[in-house]
Amino acid sequence: MTPRSARLILLLDLIGTFVFAIEGAAIAMAARLDVFGVMVISFATALGGGIVRDVLIAAAPPQALRDWRYPVVAFAAGLLAFGFYSALRQVPEYVLIALDAGGLALFAVAGAEKSLSLGMNGLASVLMGGVTGVGGGVIRDVLLNTVPAILRTDIYATAALAGAAILVASQKAGLSPRWAAALGGASCFSLRLTAVWLHWNLPQAA
Amino acid sequence: MTPRSARLILLLDLIGTFVFAIEGAAIAMAARLDVFGVMVISFATALGGGIVRDVLIAAAPPQALRDWRYPVVAFAAGLLAFGFYSALRQVPEYVLIALDAGGLALFAVAGAEKSLSLGMNGLASVLMGGVTGVGGGVIRDVLLNTVPAILRTDIYATAALAGAAILVASQKAGLSPRWAAALGGASCFSLRLTAVWLHWNLPQAA
Amino acid sequence: MTPRSARLILLLDLIGTFVFAIEGAAIAMAARLDVFGVMVISFATALGGGIVRDVLIAAAPPQALRDWRYPVVAFAAGLLAFGFYSALRQVPEYVLIALDAGGLALFAVAGAEKSLSLGMNGLASVLMGGVTGVGGGVIRDVLLNTVPAILRTDIYATAALAGAAILVASQKAGLSPRWAAALGGASCFSLRLTAVWLHWNLPQAA
Repeated sequence: MTPRSARLILLLDLIGTFVFAIEGAAIAMAARLDVFGVMVISFATALGGGIVRDVLIAAAPPQALRDWRYPVVAFAAGLLAFGFYSALRQVPEYVLIALDAGGLALFAVAGAEKSLSLGMNGLASVLMGGVTGVGGGVIRDVLLNTVPAILRTDIYATAALAGAAILVASQKAGLSPRWAAALGGASCFSLRLTAVWLHWNLPQAA
Repeated sequence: MTPRSARLILLLDLIGTFVFAIEGAAIAMAARLDVFGVMVISFATALGGGIVRDVLIAAAPPQALRDWRYPVVAFAAGLLAFGFYSALRQVPEYVLIALDAGGLALFAVAGAEKSLSLGMNGLASVLMGGVTGVGGGVIRDVLLNTVPAILRTDIYATAALAGAAILVASQKAGLSPRWAAALGGASCFSLRLTAVWLHWNLPQAA
Repeated sequence: MTPRSARLILLLDLIGTFVFAIEGAAIAMAARLDVFGVMVISFATALGGGIVRDVLIAAAPPQALRDWRYPVVAFAAGLLAFGFYSALRQVPEYVLIALDAGGLALFAVAGAEKSLSLGMNGLASVLMGGVTGVGGGVIRDVLLNTVPAILRTDIYATAALAGAAILVASQKAGLSPRWAAALGGASCFSLRLTAVWLHWNLPQAA
């Protein structure tokens, strides 16, 4: 991995971590967990996907445990959400959906870029983009004993996989990692928002 | 690991992957998931056990991510099941049970053989046979928010462990890997089917 | 890791394994699982936390799979609990709570000590102490399809993290590993028991 690629992944990761930790905290508080449970769910939502990815691509110990900034950002965001819960509940839903789509896009491209740069093949890198984007939410939902939202929410994980696929394909086609990440992230973000806006659904079996 | 051992594991793995992906897809469609959710559950059911095994025996990145044939077989089987759902529902239950027992036997022996060949001890190799055989189904059931079937279905995981134990014991006794795998797999398969046929149960605490 | 440190971790681990396996078995039998399900839940409760820790700190294959004494202790404890279930149900609750607090303390300090000795940073080592202490119970609860008790039981995981933090801080302050472990373990144990005794709660969001 080049230093530039590493810096790019770090920045995307920390912003995504903050957004997803806030979101995890909000869901944990709605489930009436105490402050410790809220911290656990913030951590799991924000860092679970990247931790699973790092274990799978043989990059253990995961970056989230090597670099103290990851847990600190997650816990700080969780505490912030805990302290300002009533303010958080005033935030309009479309803002939350846009922030979440932003976090999803950041994680999907960070995950795909890291996997590619560590030598995983294209298909595996796309899957790792998806795992990074939605893995934390899946762990959160399993811990809260609900069927993971991604199995029911249309075009969520699909957007993460599409963004990761566009990143991988553009890099294979010669685009620089930075531009490929921008293109993949923008695609994921706009696909997710368009799907929410137009109520797109995926088909079920007949 | 010898090349012959690697080829043996690959073949067993891909056939087991196909069978388990079909089965995962059927369960996901019965749970009314959309096509994306069906793909996720197919992948998890078919490849989850082997992925967990590879992480545990320090063979990360898992074979399912190194070799594109694994995800391609899983997704193809999932799509096939999705496209032919009404045909799939006509298949008699005893055929499904036999196919499932076959997949279980293939995965149990592939998992035990791989663990042994990477230097794990006998007990750990038996456990890894069990994890490979039932791990994907456990992940699927956790994702679908049900108590894993293996904790309730008598003589299912037990059959996987028995088959793996027979493979390990026969290799230690001097049998070739190929014959040990055949013996372990046949034992797992026939134990599972006999248990279904005779309604064998394991005891509960008094 | 020094040999002395390794022996210390082994001893703490095996005692904790025995206690947690008994506890897992009791919960599995109360959930009416058969003898196989009881064994799985004993194993997961006792060894799940350490296995996840070892994967995360890049110590795979986990000690619980390298050293046959771990699964043997877990299965023996599970079988013992299965065989003497009616006797087990006569044990007064305060004894079970004290044993559980002891197991928690042992695992928390073993996990933090191992992470530190393998070069993880202080924050990560504290988190790994927490994972070792409560990870097995979380896996058990997820398998039994309930919200993990630690997300609802006040001052349980918190006690594990506090004990691990005290171990890490005392080692950084120059205390020997053995004394740091004793201090951390005693803190975790007494904090947990005091919290149960005084019905301490953590706050929820307003």
